[in-house]
Amino acid sequence: MYETSHFQQYRNLHREWARPDFINLNPIQRGGILSEEARKALLEFGDGYSTCDWCPPKEARLDAIEKPPISSFYQDLAKFLGMDVARVVTRCREAKFIIFMTMTRPGDIIVVDSLAHYSTFLAAELAQLEVVEVPNSGPPEFRITPEDYRAVIERIIKEKGRPPALALLTHVDSHYGNLTDAKKVAEVCHEFNVPLILNAAYTAGIMPVDGKTIGADFIVSSGHKSWAASAPTGILAMKEEFAEKVLVRSKRYPNKELALLGCTVMGAPLLSLMASFPHVTERVKKWDEEIEKARYLVSVLEQIEGTRQLGIRPKQHTLIHVQSDGFWKVSQQHPRRGYFLYDELKQRRIVGIQPGLSKHFKLNTYGLSWENIKYVGDAFLEIAKKYQLL
Amino acid sequence: MYETSHFQQYRNLHREWARPDFINLNPIQRGGILSEEARKALLEFGDGYSTCDWCPPKEARLDAIEKPPISSFYQDLAKFLGMDVARVVTRCREAKFIIFMTMTRPGDIIVVDSLAHYSTFLAAELAQLEVVEVPNSGPPEFRITPEDYRAVIERIIKEKGRPPALALLTHVDSHYGNLTDAKKVAEVCHEFNVPLILNAAYTAGIMPVDGKTIGADFIVSSGHKSWAASAPTGILAMKEEFAEKVLVRSKRYPNKELALLGCTVMGAPLLSLMASFPHVTERVKKWDEEIEKARYLVSVLEQIEGTRQLGIRPKQHTLIHVQSDGFWKVSQQHPRRGYFLYDELKQRRIVGIQPGLSKHFKLNTYGLSWENIKYVGDAFLEIAKKYQLL
Repeated sequence: MYETSHFQQYRNLHREWARPDFINLNPIQRGGILSEEARKALLEFGDGYSTCDWCPPKEARLDAIEKPPISSFYQDLAKFLGMDVARVVTRCREAKFIIFMTMTRPGDIIVVDSLAHYSTFLAAELAQLEVVEVPNSGPPEFRITPEDYRAVIERIIKEKGRPPALALLTHVDSHYGNLTDAKKVAEVCHEFNVPLILNAAYTAGIMPVDGKTIGADFIVSSGHKSWAASAPTGILAMKEEFAEKVLVRSKRYPNKELALLGCTVMGAPLLSLMASFPHVTERVKKWDEEIEKARYLVSVLEQIEGTRQLGIRPKQHTLIHVQSDGFWKVSQQHPRRGYFLYDELKQRRIVGIQPGLSKHFKLNTYGLSWENIKYVGDAFLEIAKKYQLL
Repeated sequence: MYETSHFQQYRNLHREWARPDFINLNPIQRGGILSEEARKALLEFGDGYSTCDWCPPKEARLDAIEKPPISSFYQDLAKFLGMDVARVVTRCREAKFIIFMTMTRPGDIIVVDSLAHYSTFLAAELAQLEVVEVPNSGPPEFRITPEDYRAVIERIIKEKGRPPALALLTHVDSHYGNLTDAKKVAEVCHEFNVPLILNAAYTAGIMPVDGKTIGADFIVSSGHKSWAASAPTGILAMKEEFAEKVLVRSKRYPNKELALLGCTVMGAPLLSLMASFPHVTERVKKWDEEIEKARYLVSVLEQIEGTRQLGIRPKQHTLIHVQSDGFWKVSQQHPRRGYFLYDELKQRRIVGIQPGLSKHFKLNTYGLSWENIKYVGDAFLEIAKKYQLL
């Protein structure tokens, strides 16, 4: 019935960037590179429903499985995040949607930072919520402060007669890699009895995040973004007081968690998250050095004509937004236009900066060795020199 | 901060049943065993966001990616199922929830077969729908007919003045492995202008399923159940006329599909599904032989005292529900109670029947060689003989 020669393209699926001699600076990929343990777990639990061999018949739910130790892992995960209860769901965006669905009603107002990931806005739109944005300070810093949250919440109370149903803070945003003071934002929210969701997609798993110290009511995160796990995995962690509502059971199947649709990630990605967990709990301790490396690379990049880091200075995160009028000027004359930068970097075995971009581009230094960081810095300088930008 | 010796349990995560010398009869696992190509793809695309290297900036959506050939795969997947549009979502249950969310309103009535998977009822409950069940004929066959659908739909029209918003048929159910005539059910539904969702979680990917011939409006399926893919992967396929509604775009981000929350499975499981696809399109052609093997094993099992296959006879699917008053009688006297059967099978390198069960148990013969099928049959007879059931 079907032309199978065409299927050749699905055989030997190859990922060019997986080459071990490549240095990958992709802003969303650095924290999701698997540990060796995770790679082993991926194969061991690759088959569909591989986690379900020892599903306890009474609970019949992923979080109750003890072999492999999923139940124990969920508890460790909650503890590591300083929260009471944790679940692994399919994506960070699904974690947000689950909280929105169970904690609000259509038409409710929620407060979200203006640098939030698009998926936060999608989850809110799907839950039929009205989103009021907390503004940022604009270029070049795009800073968001606890006082910005206070102003927005107070305005909502004044206009609507009651506080928003929820607030969400993107701990570190995907545009500039800005770190916002979550503890102070939580204090402001709690003054008005507004529960706070901390979107730790770019923080938990690579830097220390303690929900108890922060005072977060919910923490959501992304296994494939920051926990050395395969996609798709999302983390949904909460304070005990919200568990009954968010993990509400089905009326028809009282052992099933309704908004999770029962079980969630029944296979390899969950096991990759578990296998990387010991590694992750260690790596967050080395965050200060990761910051040093990011700042070092910024200092090198800023030697290039018309090139500066946007967002809060000095860097407090490894995701870096670069504006380069110099590289942009080159692109205007170059036969490959903006792609020249991709080409030049690729020739030097450096990938991950979006092909075509030269004026504004993002990169992430997380987990690169000092040797590789210096190599990347030197490569940028070499390219700059070639085009008379030094 | 944290006692890391405890983390030893997350190192070298091991799956006993992954042993290549084991024969696994688990009812939900046979169709999800990876192909060799899929195992390779899993490692190649193991890292988080591995599919996003070449995300086209304009669409910025998983289904538009051409390298790896995701865009092409989605089209082939739709074509293979005889549908117009396909997406890979996180689970079959999510595919159902997405259809319910976008095609109905809270309070709407939908018609669902009484053998539907629990996740169908969960998805309907989460979408706040009222479910009216299509009854089955009860023991021993539990048969569902197109006329049962007609009776239920007519009753709803009579009582409520309008037809249900949707109907769902579980093509082959998870309890008895009964195959229901989907084409005739579709005809009945269409007489009343009710769109039909075919839950092909246990059929598409292992046996031929052609949405066009059947007349299904939607087909949902499970990659980890029946497409030799890692969990979690779900298939959501539909006729063109429903695509605009189900894949409705976000108001704020007009390139993002709202109910999918933008992108879905950004990594290894999707690639395992793609890598197995050529293999899957071939294996469905061998369905007749799979049925022969299932029937053979039933004929062997029914030699055992008080043992019979439940559900429609002869088998039209490889999922087999066995009732054994004989093994149950043994369990009543055995120090290991119902676990004796698990122990006896395990000693013979056969796993996958739920430990503890002896009176009612399920197994699946899909994809086992004749040699293994005969070995399994002989093992059962040997156990029966040991306990004087022959």
